[in-house]
Amino acid sequence: MTVLPGDGIGPEVVEATLSTLDALDAPLSFDVLDHVNASAYRRSGHALTDGDLARITSGSAVLLGAFGDPALEDTDYVRSVLLRLRLEFDLYANYRPARLWQDRLSPLRDPSKRAVDCVIVRENTEGLYSGVGGALRAATPWETAVDADISTYHGVSRIIDFAFSVAAEKVCMVDKANAVRSGGSLWQRCWREAAERHPDKRASHLYVDTAAMKLVTDPTEFEVVVTNNSYGDILSDLTAALAGGLGLAASASLNPETGFGLYEPVHGTAPDIAGKGIANPLATVLTAALLYERLELTAEADALRRAVTAAIAKGRVTPDLGGDLSTREAAAAVRAEL
Amino acid sequence: MTVLPGDGIGPEVVEATLSTLDALDAPLSFDVLDHVNASAYRRSGHALTDGDLARITSGSAVLLGAFGDPALEDTDYVRSVLLRLRLEFDLYANYRPARLWQDRLSPLRDPSKRAVDCVIVRENTEGLYSGVGGALRAATPWETAVDADISTYHGVSRIIDFAFSVAAEKVCMVDKANAVRSGGSLWQRCWREAAERHPDKRASHLYVDTAAMKLVTDPTEFEVVVTNNSYGDILSDLTAALAGGLGLAASASLNPETGFGLYEPVHGTAPDIAGKGIANPLATVLTAALLYERLELTAEADALRRAVTAAIAKGRVTPDLGGDLSTREAAAAVRAEL
Ligand SMILES: CC(C)[C@H](C(=O)O)[C@@H](O)C(=O)O
Ligand SMILES: CC(C)[C@H](C(=O)O)[C@@H](O)C(=O)O
Repeated sequence: MTVLPGDGIGPEVVEATLSTLDALDAPLSFDVLDHVNASAYRRSGHALTDGDLARITSGSAVLLGAFGDPALEDTDYVRSVLLRLRLEFDLYANYRPARLWQDRLSPLRDPSKRAVDCVIVRENTEGLYSGVGGALRAATPWETAVDADISTYHGVSRIIDFAFSVAAEKVCMVDKANAVRSGGSLWQRCWREAAERHPDKRASHLYVDTAAMKLVTDPTEFEVVVTNNSYGDILSDLTAALAGGLGLAASASLNPETGFGLYEPVHGTAPDIAGKGIANPLATVLTAALLYERLELTAEADALRRAVTAAIAKGRVTPDLGGDLSTREAAAAVRAEL
Repeated sequence: MTVLPGDGIGPEVVEATLSTLDALDAPLSFDVLDHVNASAYRRSGHALTDGDLARITSGSAVLLGAFGDPALEDTDYVRSVLLRLRLEFDLYANYRPARLWQDRLSPLRDPSKRAVDCVIVRENTEGLYSGVGGALRAATPWETAVDADISTYHGVSRIIDFAFSVAAEKVCMVDKANAVRSGGSLWQRCWREAAERHPDKRASHLYVDTAAMKLVTDPTEFEVVVTNNSYGDILSDLTAALAGGLGLAASASLNPETGFGLYEPVHGTAPDIAGKGIANPLATVLTAALLYERLELTAEADALRRAVTAAIAKGRVTPDLGGDLSTREAAAAVRAEL
């Protein structure tokens, strides 16, 4: 397994998580590439060298901290790491579970609606993230900027099929077919076809605005939500908020066919608290649990989650979750529960 | 003023609202075009005739109920009314206030974070709603569908300026410049320039995923949020949910230069309850309040809002807000408070 700690709080939460994982007897070895980061990019104009990519390719998964640098034109740097890896390995399925680990962490008032336990399945390789676009009369008062929102039958069908494959009972497809027509009608067609291929699962549909509203009103209604790259980005941050915030949000970018995966906490580099040793490592620990689950190390995945739940229940957590532990102490608290 | 009741619950909530407005001594007359609806569209293939457009043009505003028909290919019909009017009158500023009228209606747990009182200012004429796009190899397994997300310097600058003009203290611009580059960098440029033109207001920026999360975590942090057509669609449903749901969400599509406006509740046609006489008329009443405010009938606007607040406080509302009144009774309850 390759580890890319990255920038900001990335190295802190990754180091803490690795020390927790040490306590598990899992047959995994870690190849840590800590030179892949914003300062390397600033120096050389490249974040990932060919050598890095070769090392990544030789592993079966990547565990990532966070990438980004407020001092840089964020756009290019982030694209050259995160979005590049997603495309390079065709990691088309972004799997973002949201589960409330403890009632007290829910922002919702109605106790019967707090127990969110859903997954956003986000298409991860096309849509508005295609990178196709440009500007006419750039940098003038007559500029017109265009970004192409591209969907393919291949891309939409496979992500919807993946969503059905991970759902126990029901899948809700989210689009904006009533306003964004070309992609909308393709998603609708792929959706009808996929629903016919999976008659054992319940299939429903919402427009993205309604989905955002219903997720706040009652997230417990949802099991698997499948949607495009842009809506998935937004809705997965929304469900993360409903499940107690970014401090606990794990994610995996998968290619179900090759089995390769990129595992990353949903949070970013958090420059405001970077270097202070107070970043919450639990999202990274839960991301590791996703990795173990995907590698069929189910016992290890369950053990990690139980340990996280126990640490949260005892309040042995970082300040963002109401505790007073440091990053290392919070990781040690999980380790103590293993 | 032209009134377009539309489809589903549209005619019910509009009729009830007009009966409430009757009680005000405002110098407004209403030209009701109730033949503009889905059945006309199904019969003739047109929803708005040239004659209708001429009548609409001769007024200074339109009050709209809701448009849509689940039996139709929603896409074309809705576009031909709602999106057409927005474009025809260049109603580029979609103004969507979210205000919590009563504490009990908030879905949020923390009392100190419930009192949302913000406005989403949504660009309403470009972005992903441009209608520019198409499909290659449509209806085959090799389809590629493209929708253009188009932003212009003209369009972005004017909506950001509008946002500053309606803000008392602060404006937050929301985009996704770290992934959607061409539009993102144009929005960033227009934003920097506009912030310099309005040094008296506080200017901040969030990526759309973070904005969705922060709105749930603490909506009271926000005053005016300005964003593109697609993100504005999503975030305004989100803020509506935080302010007690679509039953209370008002909106206006404005052209600040001509003064023309289209006023509509954010909710749709609600086919499941249409014709039952239980739809909540308050979003339409509050939409009328927006109209009065914009026409500088401030006393009337305030009176309507006070009456709505009083009716809600007494529980004299429809079932969606926990009452047991019909649409007409709920409108009468507001009227009784005027
Ligand atoms: C019906 C739909 C096209 C419309 C939109 O997205 O603009 C609606 O959701 C709204 O927000 O007014
Ligand atoms: C950093 C950014 C480009 C990225 C995305 O939008 O994909 C992040 O928000 C995420 O969700 O992983």
